[in-house]
Amino acid sequence: MPKLDAAWTAIQDQVRNLEGLSGAIGLLEWDQQVTMPAAGGALRGPTLGVLSGLHHQHLVDPAFGEALDVLGSAVEDGSAGPLQAAAHRVLARAHRRAVRVPEALVRRKAEARSTAFGAWMAAREDEDFQAFAPALGELLALVREAAACQPDEGHPYDALLQDFDPDATTAGHAPVFARLSSELAAFVAEVQGSGRELAALELQVDDDGLFALSEELLRRLGFDLRRGRLDRSQHPFTVGLGPQDVRLTTHTYGEDLLGTLKGTVHECGHGLYEQGLPAELAGTGLMAAAGVSLHESQSRFWENCIGGSRAFFEWLAPLAGDFLPEVALDPEALFEANSRVSPGYIRIKADEATYNLHIALRFELEQGLVSGEIPVSELEEAWNARAEAVGLPRPDRPTRGVLQDVHWASGMFGYFPTYTMGNLMAARLKEALERELPEVWAHVARGEFEPVLAFLRERVHRRASLVEPSVIIEEACGEGDPVAAFMAHLRSRQGEAYGLA
Amino acid sequence: MPKLDAAWTAIQDQVRNLEGLSGAIGLLEWDQQVTMPAAGGALRGPTLGVLSGLHHQHLVDPAFGEALDVLGSAVEDGSAGPLQAAAHRVLARAHRRAVRVPEALVRRKAEARSTAFGAWMAAREDEDFQAFAPALGELLALVREAAACQPDEGHPYDALLQDFDPDATTAGHAPVFARLSSELAAFVAEVQGSGRELAALELQVDDDGLFALSEELLRRLGFDLRRGRLDRSQHPFTVGLGPQDVRLTTHTYGEDLLGTLKGTVHECGHGLYEQGLPAELAGTGLMAAAGVSLHESQSRFWENCIGGSRAFFEWLAPLAGDFLPEVALDPEALFEANSRVSPGYIRIKADEATYNLHIALRFELEQGLVSGEIPVSELEEAWNARAEAVGLPRPDRPTRGVLQDVHWASGMFGYFPTYTMGNLMAARLKEALERELPEVWAHVARGEFEPVLAFLRERVHRRASLVEPSVIIEEACGEGDPVAAFMAHLRSRQGEAYGLA
Repeated sequence: MPKLDAAWTAIQDQVRNLEGLSGAIGLLEWDQQVTMPAAGGALRGPTLGVLSGLHHQHLVDPAFGEALDVLGSAVEDGSAGPLQAAAHRVLARAHRRAVRVPEALVRRKAEARSTAFGAWMAAREDEDFQAFAPALGELLALVREAAACQPDEGHPYDALLQDFDPDATTAGHAPVFARLSSELAAFVAEVQGSGRELAALELQVDDDGLFALSEELLRRLGFDLRRGRLDRSQHPFTVGLGPQDVRLTTHTYGEDLLGTLKGTVHECGHGLYEQGLPAELAGTGLMAAAGVSLHESQSRFWENCIGGSRAFFEWLAPLAGDFLPEVALDPEALFEANSRVSPGYIRIKADEATYNLHIALRFELEQGLVSGEIPVSELEEAWNARAEAVGLPRPDRPTRGVLQDVHWASGMFGYFPTYTMGNLMAARLKEALERELPEVWAHVARGEFEPVLAFLRERVHRRASLVEPSVIIEEACGEGDPVAAFMAHLRSRQGEAYGLA
Repeated sequence: MPKLDAAWTAIQDQVRNLEGLSGAIGLLEWDQQVTMPAAGGALRGPTLGVLSGLHHQHLVDPAFGEALDVLGSAVEDGSAGPLQAAAHRVLARAHRRAVRVPEALVRRKAEARSTAFGAWMAAREDEDFQAFAPALGELLALVREAAACQPDEGHPYDALLQDFDPDATTAGHAPVFARLSSELAAFVAEVQGSGRELAALELQVDDDGLFALSEELLRRLGFDLRRGRLDRSQHPFTVGLGPQDVRLTTHTYGEDLLGTLKGTVHECGHGLYEQGLPAELAGTGLMAAAGVSLHESQSRFWENCIGGSRAFFEWLAPLAGDFLPEVALDPEALFEANSRVSPGYIRIKADEATYNLHIALRFELEQGLVSGEIPVSELEEAWNARAEAVGLPRPDRPTRGVLQDVHWASGMFGYFPTYTMGNLMAARLKEALERELPEVWAHVARGEFEPVLAFLRERVHRRASLVEPSVIIEEACGEGDPVAAFMAHLRSRQGEAYGLA
């Protein structure tokens, strides 16, 4: 037992180093987008490079590996406790995955990312995909090389998915996307055949009023501003330095009230998850979200499942009126504007239904890119052809198609599916919540969000990384069909707004 | 030569690690006082602890020591260049000093500091020095133990002074303080015998106007807001993450216009120094202020030598009027209010002359504490008796005396003298500037600060840590008598305001 105790102490010390470095990196990144003076960027890259390098060094530290081996044996022979077993699962996986990728490859990838990002920016400027293709090709080759470092994770694309979700597989995702795409196409056709048109909002509101309303929204939804803050940034994001310090940003657009508030509520969902992680798990490696899809389920749950409901807009309209006296807000007009279905070019502007067609497209293309079936030089044409096939308009220029997202230019392959998986998980959580709390929408209409948050705290947040994300969802929602849950959710929103049966 | 090259590369890599960690620590500390949500403090301590620990680990790394030894031999045999020689002087000293202090002592000191700080806060609450004395005694014992780890630095108090200034010694400081105290006492007597009374300002201005004016002041003095920023915090401070990112804070007091602006100009002086450090020295250990006293000379120079001049107030009054239309500001009234001499209890509220009597008192007491001549239990009485001896009023309660400063409760012994040494250096720099630029006050009266900043950039800032601070001052100012320079400066300000010959 003293051997296990010593190993456990060594592991916790190392995790505290990793947490300290991650916290510093999180703050440096937050600051970069919120408070850093313009010229500070020249320093920020090297500083982040040093801290990331140290984080990597600590993660791959052989002494850490040895302590994890001791813990692993104790897990096997039953002498370790359940918390230690969970910690071993998470930490040994992170250590193993990091050790396998040679440092030189990490460095080459970072350089290729930087080159690809620059090329992507320039290519967007000129609407010229081919100007981006060579840099993307080089980056992709390194991404594949990194994926091949994890040979036990199956198809190279699986290893990429597992950069973000520990239990994601291509084989698991593929049938989900296939069914979802076909059901979504049928749903969109049904909407288009409804003969009904929903109006977009045409409003202009005061930016500062919108920011004050955003902050009040956070407060009402249960975000603790003593343990967090809201700022403005170019792109909204959330960073959790720990459950006691969670920072959200929003971007207020006076001409886009709905988009601004949806963005705020989305980040709030991420923030509530981060604030709900148990602080007492510090030092175990478990005080973290179980996966990126599950994280996304929390933001989507609040943004769409709660924030897209008629009940929510009934509550929101008078509150928003207090902050934005310059406009008259009608709950039904807000609900209808939010429920519009309209297949378009741009993912981040897509409605809740067709958004997932964008992801299905990218999921397919990523597999083709990683397997080599789609040569990078032919990616633009593949994109355009497949866009039409999934039911999206054929892009008339690259910035409306293959050049629209930053992900690939940043070396992030395998990330896109988390958006749709998050949507499906959110729909299942909504189903479970309605079962457990039948009067939920009456609560929402009165602005009583405590029971909703309590449900998420209990079923999702407090579990942190103690178990795999799929276990969290199964235990929270029971057996269930994610696609069916999501389609039922859409019918209760957009379907209802369009008067579908 | 390849051996030297390899050592130099290894040294630079390690310095970049140290710089990255220092930058992160600086940002974490800035954030803690400016932007951190209230509950975030629970995390901040451990995060800072981890990063400071890693900084220490890198500094004492034996491989770093070996590379420095290789460089040291190259310096001796003349094969290293002058930049490398300077880097060796600074880095070998930092490495040697850090290696000598056992990690257990570092940890015990950190704990004792935390205890002493808590005890100090409580003792202040109750006006009871004896409630602080035991914790202070324990901390002091550890401070002495740490000082004794540097046996080649002479008197243990020398080692403490050298925590802040590489070339400070008790023997060097003592005669300066002795002469200064006696000349100041004579000066104060002369002022008090002048029969003149100067009026304090009695104004109430708008806090936001004061902040906007503070920011404008920075801009006018030459602080680059693209490479820095100004925020509010409880106590004004400056942190340089590197010359491209320097952050100042101020605290606006609507009822204390002069104190607020002096605080801002003081931090601006620190900030201009940080922005003036050559970015190309990154990775050498030399991109840092040469010493704390020299740093303080920069803040005091701007606050007092420039910002206390009649010319400055002539320029400031109309500018301030633009930001604070609610009050009428008269340059002469500002100059006189700023020039008042009035021995008081509290160091941070002291005027420019008697401020140094406070420091002389602390310098004397610190020596007694470190040598053991003054037992901690008798410190309050020693303080009160010595205060009267240097010409300050005898405190009527501990918060007006021995409990007024946080320094000792934070384990900072040897820091106080830097304030007065900074004042003396500033006065010498002013003397040199007036010699080189006889029309300086005409420039200042027109708000033309470029030639002043250019002088400091050239003589002080760009030299960074390339040479010792005393060399920087000697080469900038020539031979000279610091006490005489300072007294001449006082006569040209307070002396003139009181109509002394």
